[in-house]
Amino acid sequence: MEDGKSSSQSAGKPIRCKAAICREAGEPLVIEEIMVAPPCPYEVRIRIICTSLCYSDITFWKLTVPPACVPRILGHEAVGVVESVGENVNEVAPGDVVIPTFLSECGECEDCCSKRSNLCSKFPFKIHPWMPRYENSRFTDLKGEVLYHFLFVSSFSEYTVVDINHVVKIDPAIPPDRACLFGCCIATGVGAACKVANVEAGSTVVIFGLGSIGLAVVKEMTGGGADYCFECVGLASLVQEAYASCRKGWGKTIVLGVQKPGSQLSLSSFEVLHSGKTLTGALFGGVKAKSDLPLLLKRYTDNELQVDEFVTHEVKFQDINRAFELLMGGKCIRCVIWMDK
Amino acid sequence: MEDGKSSSQSAGKPIRCKAAICREAGEPLVIEEIMVAPPCPYEVRIRIICTSLCYSDITFWKLTVPPACVPRILGHEAVGVVESVGENVNEVAPGDVVIPTFLSECGECEDCCSKRSNLCSKFPFKIHPWMPRYENSRFTDLKGEVLYHFLFVSSFSEYTVVDINHVVKIDPAIPPDRACLFGCCIATGVGAACKVANVEAGSTVVIFGLGSIGLAVVKEMTGGGADYCFECVGLASLVQEAYASCRKGWGKTIVLGVQKPGSQLSLSSFEVLHSGKTLTGALFGGVKAKSDLPLLLKRYTDNELQVDEFVTHEVKFQDINRAFELLMGGKCIRCVIWMDK
Repeated sequence: MEDGKSSSQSAGKPIRCKAAICREAGEPLVIEEIMVAPPCPYEVRIRIICTSLCYSDITFWKLTVPPACVPRILGHEAVGVVESVGENVNEVAPGDVVIPTFLSECGECEDCCSKRSNLCSKFPFKIHPWMPRYENSRFTDLKGEVLYHFLFVSSFSEYTVVDINHVVKIDPAIPPDRACLFGCCIATGVGAACKVANVEAGSTVVIFGLGSIGLAVVKEMTGGGADYCFECVGLASLVQEAYASCRKGWGKTIVLGVQKPGSQLSLSSFEVLHSGKTLTGALFGGVKAKSDLPLLLKRYTDNELQVDEFVTHEVKFQDINRAFELLMGGKCIRCVIWMDK
Repeated sequence: MEDGKSSSQSAGKPIRCKAAICREAGEPLVIEEIMVAPPCPYEVRIRIICTSLCYSDITFWKLTVPPACVPRILGHEAVGVVESVGENVNEVAPGDVVIPTFLSECGECEDCCSKRSNLCSKFPFKIHPWMPRYENSRFTDLKGEVLYHFLFVSSFSEYTVVDINHVVKIDPAIPPDRACLFGCCIATGVGAACKVANVEAGSTVVIFGLGSIGLAVVKEMTGGGADYCFECVGLASLVQEAYASCRKGWGKTIVLGVQKPGSQLSLSSFEVLHSGKTLTGALFGGVKAKSDLPLLLKRYTDNELQVDEFVTHEVKFQDINRAFELLMGGKCIRCVIWMDK
């Protein structure tokens, strides 16, 4: 399908297409035909080219308590082509290649205007099942039942609708199976290291989330604890382990993994004071979607950022459940899911 | 008593003097005659000129569970004169005016050699009842019962013994009733603001520990939360309140108040990630005892630091329990206790 033609034909009308729906927590996604409504004002309808699977998708796929909800279209690391735009959207046009992002950047609020924050106040990040601006859904199944959104992206669908504050236009020359990773994992990881932690050359760094790293082994390897610990899974217990593993006096633990709502972190307040350690969180690695993503992408095209080796697997959309098996089985780093193959 | 004369007469022998002893948790201190042993190698025996009462003394005075222990000599903010020194002490001599400090600075370990840490690894801070180097006491009562030390200082006594790594020589011209405050509160507060938080002009700062500040009032005053929150009491609940009150995106909570061992801090791990806030601890405000205290004292003598208004009350040593009443009753900021009045 040619995009310009597609947009002129389909703009303003619902699109019938395929999506992978989570109908029951923890059960295989079901590929069904759905209806995707046209974009409302300030919204963009996007044809997804490819999407990758992130641990956060799995966290919310497994979740059985609120804010879990089904039926839902998961997915939040993707790249696509603008099919049509709603009223008042001037920033992108049909045919533009874009990354939809779970964090917004309105460009106007106190946070967006500050270099110190990437947490837009006007359209704050929330774990809820709707569009950010209107609090309703653009998805229905063929019986007319509403399908819930996920992280303002919902990329496990051939078409999705995203608010313009969550859309970043990118260079179409960038391979989409690399660009999609910038929607979450690459931005989060690189941002956390460069923007939040300011890791200096020669520092000891421990990444929690590569596997089961024993506390003792860590301390042994780093001589008293790591200068920086990154928690990348989203488990409160792992945050505690990371905090315990970082160096007294100056160690810094940076929480990156999306945490289950309601999970509590228990730290000894005595240790907080007496260890001098620092704990901080960095959603999306402290990266501002529109301001910073293009700079990160340029570092990739300039061969400064190595991204290729992250993509260990790729599957067709119809095999999306295989991606879940691969990631949960520890068999892959990132699996790219191609919509049109 | 003239110090030179005193030192030559008493050096190498036990000294009989008065101390205020905590014999039961939460009960008034009892002033008794005690015996203070001569300093062992690397130790300094100090005649206390004056001492001030800190909330941490009250925390441990009230404490009934380990590491609480009685009978104990509390007190850790003081100034005194070196009476005699043990073997291998060259840094100070009898007659020198000194501040004993609860944090050591050996000057040799990785932490002491780093600008990033004030937590000496060779003689680490511990809440235990002994001298730091030999793990025994220099105090006995007249029945021969051992009296426990506190924070390596135990200044509620006419004489105390302190390890040389915990002794800072100061200019004798500085008024002792001001100098003593640099042993804890002034160093902690100024250090936290300047060394740890790097508070910029124009930042909103909230101090938890001046009284009961309502959470809503704070957020109202600061427009979304404070840039910096300092917890100065030592309550896990107050740390949580401070964390909740600081600004999403960039707010920083700095824990300064000595926490009760065993107390747990419970934070939503979801909030840690999604708020982008930072939590850190700064024992002694990140100040290195020997390297930094003289610089802070110079700022006082240069009239850059205002300290005088902190001292709202003074009492004679025999009235030390009055100081406890004043501080607990919220009636004073700092009460100086004079040993020789």
